[in-house]
Amino acid sequence: MKRVRIVVAYDGTNYCGWQIQPNGITIEEVLNKALCKLTGEEIRIIGASRTDSGVHALGNVAVFDTESSIPAERIAYALNQRLPEDIVVVKSEEVPCDWHPRYQSKVTKTYEYRIYNDQTKNPLRRQYTAFVSFPMDIEKMREAAAYLVGEHDFASFCNVRTNVESTVRTVDRIEIDREGREIVIRVTGNGFLYNMVRIIAGTLIRVGRGFYKPEKVKEILEAKERTEAGVTAPPQGLVLVRIDYGE
Amino acid sequence: MKRVRIVVAYDGTNYCGWQIQPNGITIEEVLNKALCKLTGEEIRIIGASRTDSGVHALGNVAVFDTESSIPAERIAYALNQRLPEDIVVVKSEEVPCDWHPRYQSKVTKTYEYRIYNDQTKNPLRRQYTAFVSFPMDIEKMREAAAYLVGEHDFASFCNVRTNVESTVRTVDRIEIDREGREIVIRVTGNGFLYNMVRIIAGTLIRVGRGFYKPEKVKEILEAKERTEAGVTAPPQGLVLVRIDYGE
Repeated sequence: MKRVRIVVAYDGTNYCGWQIQPNGITIEEVLNKALCKLTGEEIRIIGASRTDSGVHALGNVAVFDTESSIPAERIAYALNQRLPEDIVVVKSEEVPCDWHPRYQSKVTKTYEYRIYNDQTKNPLRRQYTAFVSFPMDIEKMREAAAYLVGEHDFASFCNVRTNVESTVRTVDRIEIDREGREIVIRVTGNGFLYNMVRIIAGTLIRVGRGFYKPEKVKEILEAKERTEAGVTAPPQGLVLVRIDYGE
Repeated sequence: MKRVRIVVAYDGTNYCGWQIQPNGITIEEVLNKALCKLTGEEIRIIGASRTDSGVHALGNVAVFDTESSIPAERIAYALNQRLPEDIVVVKSEEVPCDWHPRYQSKVTKTYEYRIYNDQTKNPLRRQYTAFVSFPMDIEKMREAAAYLVGEHDFASFCNVRTNVESTVRTVDRIEIDREGREIVIRVTGNGFLYNMVRIIAGTLIRVGRGFYKPEKVKEILEAKERTEAGVTAPPQGLVLVRIDYGE
């Protein structure tokens, strides 16, 4: 018996998110089935991040236990032969049998939220960006983002369905850049509440459009009330880029 | 009666190309139906470029005649309400009644061909790039591309099903750049033979991988034989970026 860790990239467009659920096909389910075909075992992976419906990943992480004689490093290749085009296993390797992707003391997650900012929509980017036709002031967005960096109670940036002990999290860094007609919001932190990055994006979009002053973000944080922040930005703009365990 | 010109952007992934055909849904057909719903007339558009199945566009051009009282400039907006998300009319305007998108003396078309060049596939780019896992030498690709610039007989870069009087065309410019993990081949010219840009891309990929020396492209041109050139690169890497009528 060995424990194998995989790094997974996927286009979330056609999936009901990561986690298995009765109403539609999920990434977790497709990976379980492919592993089952590969090993002949009844495998259930454990994922690091349960991304929402329509959200993408370049580096989600999962583990599973197997008796298979296939070397851990070769599993990525073998698995990709059994996966649809929109799910790719980027890497596979053996980890200690008690290594768990959600319970590690040192974790840094990096997300990117992309906005397509132009007068007309670009159909080639519709599944990977949120569309904003109004001019955006990215200097103001950067000013606003600075209030979010550090350890804060992010209760205002968390949708109600969350049931967590504490809403305190640390955001290490928020970078905002233009790349052609796109604006990229890159957020790094030790953990994120439900919909937190999408609510941050929705709030920063309001700042960029001039609906909120940058200082408003400080008030929103202090209010600790979800209703104070901007709307949850749509899922297709979000990518879980990387999970770093400080190894 | 007025003639209206539209600039159209589309994601070609789910279409059997531009031109109406019995075996599947096409961009032309969807535009005709939307125009029919909008105006109540039986409209048949005339397109500038009949892109292939799976090929994308940011700026294809088409015209149609209508009795509609909707101002030409407003048609883009009205049409977009009746189109699926993967087709967007970027602009609409009135043109003289005899203006034809394919018979203009001054035309410049710009295409981009994108290669995703990394060790592992990126599922978010699978519909918009060709995947090449081998290291690519873009300096060599640029050297090779230089042989193609200018007026040449491109018979070697044209698939057999073409039935044209002359295979002489002028390529104004080929630019090759890295953008992150992607290599972009940007080709501008006054007209292109059937599959010409995709065969140029397929040939330059062979040069980049070291299968062909740059000088081989000169020999291929001189041979005037399709079998001499590289394979036709896959459709999803190609975008018709712009058609410029020198107005």
